[in-house]
Amino acid sequence: MRAMVYHGPGQKAWEEVPDPEITDDGDAILRVDTTTICGTDLHILKGDVPAVASGRILGHEAVGVIEEVGDGVRTLRPGDRVLVSCVSACGNCRYCREGRYGQCLSGGGWILGHTINGTQAEYVRVPFADHSVYQAPDGVPDEEILMLADVLPTGYEVGVLNGHVRPGDVVAVVGAGPVGLSAITGAQLVSPSHIVAIDLADARLEAAKGFGADVTVNSSREDPLAVIRGLTTGLGADVTIEAVGVPATFELAVKLARPGGRIANVGVHGEAATLHLEDQWTRDITITTGLVDTYSTPTLMRLVVSRQIDARKFITHNFGLDDFPEAYDVFARAADTGALKVVLSR
Amino acid sequence: MRAMVYHGPGQKAWEEVPDPEITDDGDAILRVDTTTICGTDLHILKGDVPAVASGRILGHEAVGVIEEVGDGVRTLRPGDRVLVSCVSACGNCRYCREGRYGQCLSGGGWILGHTINGTQAEYVRVPFADHSVYQAPDGVPDEEILMLADVLPTGYEVGVLNGHVRPGDVVAVVGAGPVGLSAITGAQLVSPSHIVAIDLADARLEAAKGFGADVTVNSSREDPLAVIRGLTTGLGADVTIEAVGVPATFELAVKLARPGGRIANVGVHGEAATLHLEDQWTRDITITTGLVDTYSTPTLMRLVVSRQIDARKFITHNFGLDDFPEAYDVFARAADTGALKVVLSR
Amino acid sequence: MRAMVYHGPGQKAWEEVPDPEITDDGDAILRVDTTTICGTDLHILKGDVPAVASGRILGHEAVGVIEEVGDGVRTLRPGDRVLVSCVSACGNCRYCREGRYGQCLSGGGWILGHTINGTQAEYVRVPFADHSVYQAPDGVPDEEILMLADVLPTGYEVGVLNGHVRPGDVVAVVGAGPVGLSAITGAQLVSPSHIVAIDLADARLEAAKGFGADVTVNSSREDPLAVIRGLTTGLGADVTIEAVGVPATFELAVKLARPGGRIANVGVHGEAATLHLEDQWTRDITITTGLVDTYSTPTLMRLVVSRQIDARKFITHNFGLDDFPEAYDVFARAADTGALKVVLSR
Amino acid sequence: MRAMVYHGPGQKAWEEVPDPEITDDGDAILRVDTTTICGTDLHILKGDVPAVASGRILGHEAVGVIEEVGDGVRTLRPGDRVLVSCVSACGNCRYCREGRYGQCLSGGGWILGHTINGTQAEYVRVPFADHSVYQAPDGVPDEEILMLADVLPTGYEVGVLNGHVRPGDVVAVVGAGPVGLSAITGAQLVSPSHIVAIDLADARLEAAKGFGADVTVNSSREDPLAVIRGLTTGLGADVTIEAVGVPATFELAVKLARPGGRIANVGVHGEAATLHLEDQWTRDITITTGLVDTYSTPTLMRLVVSRQIDARKFITHNFGLDDFPEAYDVFARAADTGALKVVLSR
Repeated sequence: MRAMVYHGPGQKAWEEVPDPEITDDGDAILRVDTTTICGTDLHILKGDVPAVASGRILGHEAVGVIEEVGDGVRTLRPGDRVLVSCVSACGNCRYCREGRYGQCLSGGGWILGHTINGTQAEYVRVPFADHSVYQAPDGVPDEEILMLADVLPTGYEVGVLNGHVRPGDVVAVVGAGPVGLSAITGAQLVSPSHIVAIDLADARLEAAKGFGADVTVNSSREDPLAVIRGLTTGLGADVTIEAVGVPATFELAVKLARPGGRIANVGVHGEAATLHLEDQWTRDITITTGLVDTYSTPTLMRLVVSRQIDARKFITHNFGLDDFPEAYDVFARAADTGALKVVLSR
Repeated sequence: MRAMVYHGPGQKAWEEVPDPEITDDGDAILRVDTTTICGTDLHILKGDVPAVASGRILGHEAVGVIEEVGDGVRTLRPGDRVLVSCVSACGNCRYCREGRYGQCLSGGGWILGHTINGTQAEYVRVPFADHSVYQAPDGVPDEEILMLADVLPTGYEVGVLNGHVRPGDVVAVVGAGPVGLSAITGAQLVSPSHIVAIDLADARLEAAKGFGADVTVNSSREDPLAVIRGLTTGLGADVTIEAVGVPATFELAVKLARPGGRIANVGVHGEAATLHLEDQWTRDITITTGLVDTYSTPTLMRLVVSRQIDARKFITHNFGLDDFPEAYDVFARAADTGALKVVLSR
Repeated sequence: MRAMVYHGPGQKAWEEVPDPEITDDGDAILRVDTTTICGTDLHILKGDVPAVASGRILGHEAVGVIEEVGDGVRTLRPGDRVLVSCVSACGNCRYCREGRYGQCLSGGGWILGHTINGTQAEYVRVPFADHSVYQAPDGVPDEEILMLADVLPTGYEVGVLNGHVRPGDVVAVVGAGPVGLSAITGAQLVSPSHIVAIDLADARLEAAKGFGADVTVNSSREDPLAVIRGLTTGLGADVTIEAVGVPATFELAVKLARPGGRIANVGVHGEAATLHLEDQWTRDITITTGLVDTYSTPTLMRLVVSRQIDARKFITHNFGLDDFPEAYDVFARAADTGALKVVLSR
Repeated sequence: MRAMVYHGPGQKAWEEVPDPEITDDGDAILRVDTTTICGTDLHILKGDVPAVASGRILGHEAVGVIEEVGDGVRTLRPGDRVLVSCVSACGNCRYCREGRYGQCLSGGGWILGHTINGTQAEYVRVPFADHSVYQAPDGVPDEEILMLADVLPTGYEVGVLNGHVRPGDVVAVVGAGPVGLSAITGAQLVSPSHIVAIDLADARLEAAKGFGADVTVNSSREDPLAVIRGLTTGLGADVTIEAVGVPATFELAVKLARPGGRIANVGVHGEAATLHLEDQWTRDITITTGLVDTYSTPTLMRLVVSRQIDARKFITHNFGLDDFPEAYDVFARAADTGALKVVLSR
């Protein structure tokens, strides 16, 4: 088969590789019909994720059809059309029993395209298949279901649910890339009174409006704290969601929260941030971090089916699988191309 | 009357001052029968709390008898024996309606001995009296009730409740001063499987054992992370409570928590700490800060009455009101004197 | 002034009465600009609420302007335009401190038009004014704000919040009168996947569609259990909200819930219901009851201002104050007139 | 092997039966070292549980050693000493993913000694073994671990956790049989101010005192409502736990709760109860029902290990496996024998 293979920092190729095989009786083999590229894949290509060895097939999102299952698989059969989640789950460890699949202690968590071969390929082996794939509902195109593999649950779980967004809240989202837009999408489900998107790029802020932000702040020109205070009688946001991943945006997210507010970090951080405890120790704030667990996938799937989430908004470009090199290029130059999620299909 | 007056950094005196008078119809005048000194008072004396002006009477904890009430006071009468809480509450603003009295927007919060005259005096004016004092139960000595003015609710609310301590948890308490001991006292109410006290002083660790810590770690000699991991199959503590207030102990508290764990900051911080988001962004942690609100005072009072909390353990020294200078000295030299709470009574 | 006075079962009159006066320093006198009639007022007129004495002025909902305040009122001034809530709150008792104003132990709760004179009058005395009225926001007509006095918080708090409605849920609302429609309005704020309205009257079901129910069941012709099971792979509703108040509808609400589901009773009941514990003891259900507390009023007000709640949908008829007899007639014959909320204004 | 076999209402025998065999690759075969009898077994023997067919081996609690495992079992090996839980769990369905194993949709739930052969035997086949047994900790005798199979998690989960018992609460437990005593044991973990045990038998009330009830009420002689009101300034209990299972005790449990209180039903009911909604609709109560899920087993095991739960108190009688007929007799005549839990061991 053909697959997108990582060959060390800056090196990748869409090339011929051996077909995957079942190696554990909990495995399934999936024919990949639709897959996509994540911002994390770009980090890997820069060499930022050393756990990814040269020769690894990339990708952790897919929709496709089960080709074969191991003897221990109970809930899946060849022919099933399924979503492969970015997080695999043993289903049995302490964390999996709490639905914290991202923290799986027995070999799950984010492994596809990371510590084992991934989904940017014609076929993929999915371990712990019973706990790691979801039946795709009829009547919804593959590419919409694909948005549930990572981007939608990440914004919803790590941003909106960790942030306990409630009806009437003022929510500030720092960063309007795909994950920030996902947080906006998720926040809308619970009817904040205002969603404030903050970014440095006007194009991303324009996108944020289309996703439901009613206030946008270009922080290169405007002071987000002044805007938020103006909306909240000086208090600050009920919830801030950090969706960038650098110290400055985290520190901004903390500063924007009101006393008693919550700061939900979604961003992927490469270095430490400063926490101004000398200001914050009295302010009753709650800061959360987290990896997506995908426990919300069934809920989000119902909402995609009932059209309360329009997953199509994320899809800006469509390609065939053989166009993978071009798709990576378009996605990597998002500032120019306006790419949010690029979809590759058979 | 006589009172303990702050005269600028390093300067204080037990001296004659005018009696307090009712200035707002929500005020009450209390005859102070018993009061105490808080670690915060020592900070003020060092000049660390610039909001405290020279001439201010110190103190924010008292038990005594109502002498007089303003026309607008509804629930108190002269002769009532009451606890004066460290936090005053207007009772009507957004935060007071949520029980977050420490964040009162209308003139409450921590004001006694801070922005208005305090309780280290023969009499004190208590604003917002209906919301800021609690009837003292019969049959419990004043000095035990006094422990509910600040130290007990601080450890319980900001440490135990913010930290969501649950039965069976492994709880690490960083710092075994009075507030850390209060957090240990509060944690015991919900039956952790282990309470690990961490401090640099053996004497404080010895005290922690008496309060209920079953594991103690002198972090000048032992590695707390190794101890905690040994108790938790390598995972880390379910909850860590920071009760010191310097960057190093906060950073330790974060490091000791397991994935999915909670870090409750109780310490009073004077400078920023480093938050290692490059390690923590994936670990599903929750960090909380907070000022005590005293919403738990009625609950804690029931538990003191029913003897499930033994407030007497905190009281190491007793003085008369005229011994204030000596009491400050004993309390300030806690490392030598073993002082936890010093009680001054008429 | 003129007022709507109850003169015993079946007897009422819009008649001249003395103006109200301040009798407690926490009182305010309100000039009533807009008021309405509640289903409860019809119950009173039938003689079902014996606590209402002959001679009582009816009504517990109003928007108007403060004319005068007692000496103890801190947050209101003559000229303030405010909403009078159906529930008054002392603000200080155990329940008021938890936001459970409906359970006030010190003379609050539902008292207006019940144990003291009410709002269906040109003027009304409002006790505990600081805790019992809310400043009306600019730019929203009185009649929309008026919907926040009772009907909107009742459906939201007692139905949606007690029922813990969450995104993606299937919610069944039994009864599509004004309170059921309010529950539908509130449920939509948190994006259920389906809202199923159940009633015996096609006209009310038609109204329910306009408020956001996507499935309607006329239970005189269809089996609600079959419909709900069809939507939920046989399991039952995540949340059912009872908004009628008779044994049969309560028992239906219990039966419609899935294992692990919640049943929120909003209906006003005059007799006991049967709880089939022989079926339900294993099913992990949660049943809640409750009187509205109006703690959600500020939240709902923000959502009316931001247009996420369209309060106008409830208003079917407008009258002048002198039209009170006709307004009662129209409201009492809702099946014929289609009345939801009738608004009476100066 | 020998086993306790049900032969229709009133008929049972300890007799020779075929050894169990693995029939699914998720099964394990356990050598039973210690088992016990549950009140439910007595119900079965009366013919009250028609799902139990003649010929069924009884019992759903055991501690023993794994003899053999199916090919799909991942976490267990022959020789492992384990607890067999009363509830089996597929681990993968919607309910199992939420930890609601008692509601398993794929063949789990309470099946041992119910729809398949049980644990009152020398060997037992345990389906879904990875999710349905727990490794027994070293240093704790089998018979103490055995108390975690059913009685301890039932009182803790269905009583204490569903009832949200909190520090300082007044908790009323209606019924002081083994499950009521388990609820008392669990409630003590979170430090109520008072635990009130209510029963008709003085002997059971005496036992309740030994388990931690500080107030006992013989409801044949005293009015429980008067006692509870006396403890709660007239309000009622914060939480009531029903541990009998007849209409009268359920109705009492509802009546004893304060406004805003919670009623957790643990009792096994055979008929409907009356719910006095005409009184309760305004009282903000929450009623829960539930089957034990055993999600708390790891927590309770830690607390047995750390001696915060003394499981030995439940064990009143010890027998050999061949004494099963006598053990049933002693357990069935608990009023005379004082039996709580009878333990049978190899």
